[in-house]
Amino acid sequence: MTERRSSALLTDHYELTMLQAALRSGAAHRRTVFEMFARRLPETRRYGVVAGTGRFLDALEHFRFDSAALDFLARTGVVDDPTLSFLSDYRFSGDVWGYAEGDCYFPGSPILVVEGTFAECVVLETLALSIYNHDCAIASAASRMVTAANGRPLIEMGSRRTHEEAAVAAARAAYLSGFANTSNLEAGLRYGVPTAGTSAHAFTLLHDNERHAFAAQLESLGKDTTLLVDTYDVMRAMATAVDLAGPELGAVRLDSGDLGELAVRVRAFLDERGAAETRIIVTGDLEEHAIQALAIAPVDGYGVGTSLVTGSGAPTASLVYKLVARARSDDPEAPLSPVAKRSVGKPSKGGRKWATRRLDDHGVATTERVFEYEPESGRMERPLLVPLVEGGEVVGREPLEEARERHVRAIAELPVAARRMSRGEPAIPTVFEQRAHD
Amino acid sequence: MTERRSSALLTDHYELTMLQAALRSGAAHRRTVFEMFARRLPETRRYGVVAGTGRFLDALEHFRFDSAALDFLARTGVVDDPTLSFLSDYRFSGDVWGYAEGDCYFPGSPILVVEGTFAECVVLETLALSIYNHDCAIASAASRMVTAANGRPLIEMGSRRTHEEAAVAAARAAYLSGFANTSNLEAGLRYGVPTAGTSAHAFTLLHDNERHAFAAQLESLGKDTTLLVDTYDVMRAMATAVDLAGPELGAVRLDSGDLGELAVRVRAFLDERGAAETRIIVTGDLEEHAIQALAIAPVDGYGVGTSLVTGSGAPTASLVYKLVARARSDDPEAPLSPVAKRSVGKPSKGGRKWATRRLDDHGVATTERVFEYEPESGRMERPLLVPLVEGGEVVGREPLEEARERHVRAIAELPVAARRMSRGEPAIPTVFEQRAHD
Repeated sequence: MTERRSSALLTDHYELTMLQAALRSGAAHRRTVFEMFARRLPETRRYGVVAGTGRFLDALEHFRFDSAALDFLARTGVVDDPTLSFLSDYRFSGDVWGYAEGDCYFPGSPILVVEGTFAECVVLETLALSIYNHDCAIASAASRMVTAANGRPLIEMGSRRTHEEAAVAAARAAYLSGFANTSNLEAGLRYGVPTAGTSAHAFTLLHDNERHAFAAQLESLGKDTTLLVDTYDVMRAMATAVDLAGPELGAVRLDSGDLGELAVRVRAFLDERGAAETRIIVTGDLEEHAIQALAIAPVDGYGVGTSLVTGSGAPTASLVYKLVARARSDDPEAPLSPVAKRSVGKPSKGGRKWATRRLDDHGVATTERVFEYEPESGRMERPLLVPLVEGGEVVGREPLEEARERHVRAIAELPVAARRMSRGEPAIPTVFEQRAHD
Repeated sequence: MTERRSSALLTDHYELTMLQAALRSGAAHRRTVFEMFARRLPETRRYGVVAGTGRFLDALEHFRFDSAALDFLARTGVVDDPTLSFLSDYRFSGDVWGYAEGDCYFPGSPILVVEGTFAECVVLETLALSIYNHDCAIASAASRMVTAANGRPLIEMGSRRTHEEAAVAAARAAYLSGFANTSNLEAGLRYGVPTAGTSAHAFTLLHDNERHAFAAQLESLGKDTTLLVDTYDVMRAMATAVDLAGPELGAVRLDSGDLGELAVRVRAFLDERGAAETRIIVTGDLEEHAIQALAIAPVDGYGVGTSLVTGSGAPTASLVYKLVARARSDDPEAPLSPVAKRSVGKPSKGGRKWATRRLDDHGVATTERVFEYEPESGRMERPLLVPLVEGGEVVGREPLEEARERHVRAIAELPVAARRMSRGEPAIPTVFEQRAHD
């Protein structure tokens, strides 16, 4: 057991050297607004899912430069003494708004708006992006799989195919998007995600034969367990399983071969023997298209691993964190001026943003509206930014279950086309609303 | 600051329920061998890079079920009391061999061999796979980028595009494979990876104009800094940069546009003004092919982000951890019998393995030899498995620099074709050597 270090060095070197130079020039204390958004959706997806908010708020509270961090920065000369002094007192005192966790987003949606001095906002860039880029990527992939599964439960079991801490966050993000549970025990402890598991080939191979292995599992875990039936011959394993457990057998798992065809044979076998309640769980390199293709197979649940934790082709959400406005002096009352770079091919829109989702008379989303000004509330305009941090205090924490329920509503609100598995345009267009000039 | 929890719950639910069932059946104490290997290389790469060893050994030492873990397992009923009792005393007491970190691997290479009782080996599956699958994926991608850069330095700067802890591991893996440094400060603190940074557009936009921003950066960080010159107009920024810093300017960074063409213009501009030593660093969605395409451009270094931390198309190494041998009783002296499942399309070779790399008379690798028996040593056979853990004690820890140097040698030993960027077969074939039967 070692002390968990602060989150403060999960930061890029240049953020601290920019801080140093800005402290020296005096610009560090100018009020600024940074925004996080995606220029486009990955893999021509139709929507993205906001995830990571709860984790970001936790990390923000631990974003303090402790002695280990300060010693490292001093020893390696990353920054000078005035900067070290600033960092040793660092505590974010600004305001943060964001899209609520579990909501959907589109290109240009300002999913996080961070306001404070340049000094306190710039150092959060890497941490905020790391958390949201990972968690949004996983949640966005997971949401499509949930749609493809069409009500059948999904088990998240990809821990082994991603970084061990990313695995915990992936389990959280998948649950948020509607997965039933996870294999990852730490996600159970840390976030209350329900955990579940079946059995591995190693367990069967450990025993002298398959019958011994099944008997051992049934004796210890009860008949409501899931037996893995494809170590040798599936139908022979099925005969052994039903012979030992009878119709009370909880489930069997198929992990190889033609899953659809096997499921048909296994279902028929189970039904013939009166085991109509015994479920069939399939696993093995499933992603959203394979899940959808199994819709007509007699399958009761899917285990998803690699494709989930790698974002099913889009392992990062490609969100960026950009300075969009700043004061021209360090007077806290000085007005904010929009700023934007003009780099080729990487356009940004300057100025603090607000956002609403416009709905039609049936409550179906029609437009993502991004405003340069605070819009008036309207009956068919759902405001999208909620307060997360006020004056440095976290105010936006909520149970994971709330984000999970919000995601169900957010998906239901989108046009039907959003739930297609094929590649396509964003489900609704993003419209930038400029202030009318007199 | 919170306590860092043990690594023990970075584990799949089913490992503990299998443990429970095996404790009940008595098979849990049978001696076993588990092996980690890749069935194939991802993305038709020509070699893989072993990475994660040092991190795995650290995690293994922290693999203890502390009270938080045990309380969770008891409260949620994941396992029964005898299993909790076993876990509370858990400490790996077996042996581990592995390919040395930084070495190359091929399909079927037994990169990790874990021997101990089933009970103590099975629970390490997820943790070991998570670490190696992530780190090998990143190191394998990084190694190709280093080849493509052909001696020019590479900066790892992908932290923002991956999970915040994966970012630290990615920086370590990239450095192992030959990257010069990283933007990730935590990787500097934790693993001694050199850190570096340039500047962001936000710094320029914060100031009243580009000249103010450059002046502030030069004043604080010295002339040997790297100025970001593409916020507005590159050639105008170059004029400002050279005007302010003169020929001692350290470097400029280009992050957008046609990098090759811009580099030519910037180089000419710098040379005309006597700034022949000022370096040109390019960044912006670079991967190995883009790096190689810039070989003829006057570029002095590359910053690589997204493609590095996502494994450049292969975010996981797809390594598996399989039971390959076990005793038929829990007598510690009982001989080990090979075991292997027969699942369709997922072949495993049973039995404990040894491995050597055969070299020709010029020292060039010709074959990956995987033995079912301990081979005799030969002059042109490089043994690949080194002891990592003996009787539960870590014996294979080494400085990261040693692994980094080993990787240089391992790559140099491969046939020239291994260093091609195109898709292809593994650089050398894997040959399974069976014991001759009398």
